[in-house]
Amino acid sequence: MKTINVTIWNEFRHEKRNPKVQEIYPEGIHACIKKFLDVNEDMKVRLAALDDPDQGLPDEVLDSTDVLIWWGHLAHREVSDELVEKIRQRVYLGKMSFIALHSAHHSKPFRAILGTNGNLSWGRDQKEIVWTLLPAHEIAAGIPDHFILPLEELYSEPFYIPQPDELIFCSWFEDGHVMRSGATFYRGAGKVFYFQPGHEECPSFHNPYVQRVITNAVRWAVPNEIGYTVKDECPHITWKTTDEFNQ
Amino acid sequence: MKTINVTIWNEFRHEKRNPKVQEIYPEGIHACIKKFLDVNEDMKVRLAALDDPDQGLPDEVLDSTDVLIWWGHLAHREVSDELVEKIRQRVYLGKMSFIALHSAHHSKPFRAILGTNGNLSWGRDQKEIVWTLLPAHEIAAGIPDHFILPLEELYSEPFYIPQPDELIFCSWFEDGHVMRSGATFYRGAGKVFYFQPGHEECPSFHNPYVQRVITNAVRWAVPNEIGYTVKDECPHITWKTTDEFNQ
Amino acid sequence: MKTINVTIWNEFRHEKRNPKVQEIYPEGIHACIKKFLDVNEDMKVRLAALDDPDQGLPDEVLDSTDVLIWWGHLAHREVSDELVEKIRQRVYLGKMSFIALHSAHHSKPFRAILGTNGNLSWGRDQKEIVWTLLPAHEIAAGIPDHFILPLEELYSEPFYIPQPDELIFCSWFEDGHVMRSGATFYRGAGKVFYFQPGHEECPSFHNPYVQRVITNAVRWAVPNEIGYTVKDECPHITWKTTDEFNQ
Amino acid sequence: MKTINVTIWNEFRHEKRNPKVQEIYPEGIHACIKKFLDVNEDMKVRLAALDDPDQGLPDEVLDSTDVLIWWGHLAHREVSDELVEKIRQRVYLGKMSFIALHSAHHSKPFRAILGTNGNLSWGRDQKEIVWTLLPAHEIAAGIPDHFILPLEELYSEPFYIPQPDELIFCSWFEDGHVMRSGATFYRGAGKVFYFQPGHEECPSFHNPYVQRVITNAVRWAVPNEIGYTVKDECPHITWKTTDEFNQ
Repeated sequence: MKTINVTIWNEFRHEKRNPKVQEIYPEGIHACIKKFLDVNEDMKVRLAALDDPDQGLPDEVLDSTDVLIWWGHLAHREVSDELVEKIRQRVYLGKMSFIALHSAHHSKPFRAILGTNGNLSWGRDQKEIVWTLLPAHEIAAGIPDHFILPLEELYSEPFYIPQPDELIFCSWFEDGHVMRSGATFYRGAGKVFYFQPGHEECPSFHNPYVQRVITNAVRWAVPNEIGYTVKDECPHITWKTTDEFNQ
Repeated sequence: MKTINVTIWNEFRHEKRNPKVQEIYPEGIHACIKKFLDVNEDMKVRLAALDDPDQGLPDEVLDSTDVLIWWGHLAHREVSDELVEKIRQRVYLGKMSFIALHSAHHSKPFRAILGTNGNLSWGRDQKEIVWTLLPAHEIAAGIPDHFILPLEELYSEPFYIPQPDELIFCSWFEDGHVMRSGATFYRGAGKVFYFQPGHEECPSFHNPYVQRVITNAVRWAVPNEIGYTVKDECPHITWKTTDEFNQ
Repeated sequence: MKTINVTIWNEFRHEKRNPKVQEIYPEGIHACIKKFLDVNEDMKVRLAALDDPDQGLPDEVLDSTDVLIWWGHLAHREVSDELVEKIRQRVYLGKMSFIALHSAHHSKPFRAILGTNGNLSWGRDQKEIVWTLLPAHEIAAGIPDHFILPLEELYSEPFYIPQPDELIFCSWFEDGHVMRSGATFYRGAGKVFYFQPGHEECPSFHNPYVQRVITNAVRWAVPNEIGYTVKDECPHITWKTTDEFNQ
Repeated sequence: MKTINVTIWNEFRHEKRNPKVQEIYPEGIHACIKKFLDVNEDMKVRLAALDDPDQGLPDEVLDSTDVLIWWGHLAHREVSDELVEKIRQRVYLGKMSFIALHSAHHSKPFRAILGTNGNLSWGRDQKEIVWTLLPAHEIAAGIPDHFILPLEELYSEPFYIPQPDELIFCSWFEDGHVMRSGATFYRGAGKVFYFQPGHEECPSFHNPYVQRVITNAVRWAVPNEIGYTVKDECPHITWKTTDEFNQ
């Protein structure tokens, strides 16, 4: 069994300042996610936070991460552009995959990797129902045709993302909105998954279906064994492919 | 200005038997659609019904139809397989496009052209809100980010269609459901659009946005000027394409 | 480790009649594929042929098959419609996946599952170069950016398939043609993969990259653990999803 | 008839320095494209070049441009980041569409709008054959199933673009390569088309099929009449959509 190296990056500020958030995620959102991932013997999970040295992601961590999970919200702008570029590169070269949770739709790495602004509309916390559109997809394994989150932040279309490669979940919100809430994107030689539940003031990361989706997504996101070296350049070809066996 | 030849096929039975339907669509759903399409100078619209001779679609009608709009519900099975095959052929060869409305998700031609069973879940009439996911698409021209249908039949995911080529609309339903409600599919050399509103007991075809979507869809669906002859066969190639200019 | 039950169906006629084919695949194309799949401890592989009882696929075999691989060519029409419908059903219900090899583009099950006619152009055997378009995809694991098949049957665009969900490989042919040669399609709750190499008179199934692609595809195709029961019907919903926790 | 305002931006340096290029495009690549677009009564075409004031694209030009065609090669880096951001914004807001030709795969605006690095491999000029994969698409109108460019620069997969929304053309190259050569991408509320032929030392812009593709693409790319205002922000929603008719 091959080990999947997962790093969960969290802005980790709300949990320190807001008692309501502290109650739901006393050790932080990232620690909560780590807890339910840790039960999987094939996953080795580390935590990283914005206020850690190197914003939590020194090169030795990035270089040994297969799947980077990202939760950020109010401090998107504080993330260094240099770090964002390192993340984008690793995703494009197929060395690391990226899972963006909830408000990470507006994070620098998500926007850099996908290329869009990630804009959407948002509103008060309310009932959300997540619907499964693509039951055949690995990320939907074990998920019923729908499940209810009694309280989640309203996120609504229009959501300015590229058309997803696979649209796996779409959510209903009490106040009359829908949102593409689970979507994959191939980028370069790498893989990206966006999943919408996870407001800091809502207990969604304690929901067993949310946990299952994230667990599935980590397994789906394991970087592929690419049979050649992906370079960040436009190589010049000086031979004929058709004759290469004759050379 | 080139004329678009539109044929609207309607099962046309509910309107004759059910007073409630008769009140909403006294001359039939197809006549209602014809009325709002007729204001477009570039469209020439004809009507066809299941109980007409040749089930409304003799060869001379099919052969002079650019866009076939289909509404059927209870009598799907009565549509002749031979007719279905003629429709499928014309769509695949790029001679005619197909727009399936509402319960046509389960019609024989829709299932034949797309290849799926078109299954979905359904329930009582209720409030529906249609959300625009792909505002850049011609079929969404003039449509706001959302519009409300005060009363429509509940259609719900899971909707067993192939992943659409373009997912333009997704709808919210009062009872907690979502539905991919506007989607395009390229098939063979032809084009297909599915649009979900339009239950016979609901006045959706009188809604200006529904009318605009269908009008847009007709223009989008005009068969392309294909620069070669599409044949229903697997041709054997006996020459080298690379040398064809030398022959 | 969960076992993947693979059944390889082969028309198995060319190998009995044509000495040239017999030389390349003495025990049949299906036996050749079985041989390289058998090295995987997680796969249990069975063979089936058109001339076997029940055309090789009695219900007990279908019911215990996770992934059905299909090779057929001249006898497509002899496959019983009843069997085709059983296969289509199982794929749509997410119980079994379908991998179509080479001339299976025109097989009854492929056409039934995808809904298109599967037409393409074809010609003389020649050099083919398979290019990897989506290196991040599991099916491309271990495959270089391109590999050469010194002799394969020319298959050419236009290939009348729906736009693939994932276009993984595209091939170059000596005489000037290209062909989408590796493509996935989600259908209903199931999964489909088409792979173009594999003419009976060419040794492609002995090529290590072709073997790797098919091996990868089997793993990708394992039916998902669907978290609800997919039925072949349109269920009527009589409750409000939003209230279901109160019931 | 509504006028389409087209602006063709050209780096316009090769034509001034390289006699070989001068011979093929004496007035510049942009002037050549203008010439064949000008025959369309519905198009009003302007030229812009890197060495013009404001790099050819002052705000008043951008604000009155529906479709921006871009050809750049050696001087990608000289294009100002501010201008790139203005272009990206207008595309995302659905005010202007972007057509990238040939080496514009590596231009700043293309990379900014799509989000990928646009890397590919390249080599010597040779015979290219463009194959039509999606004959139903407006951009393929009038184009045969394939056409030959006797001399074009080799551009090869792997081409690191997102999976296209519509893959319309794929090309064959003499030396053994394939390339996704015509592809559309919806981005934000806008539209993007990439087309690969057009090396400065090759006469492809004189080819009638290349001209037809670009002409078709301009018509396809006309920004949609969006029925609401797309803003570059994440608006906060303070009302219930479900009740908006009651307010």
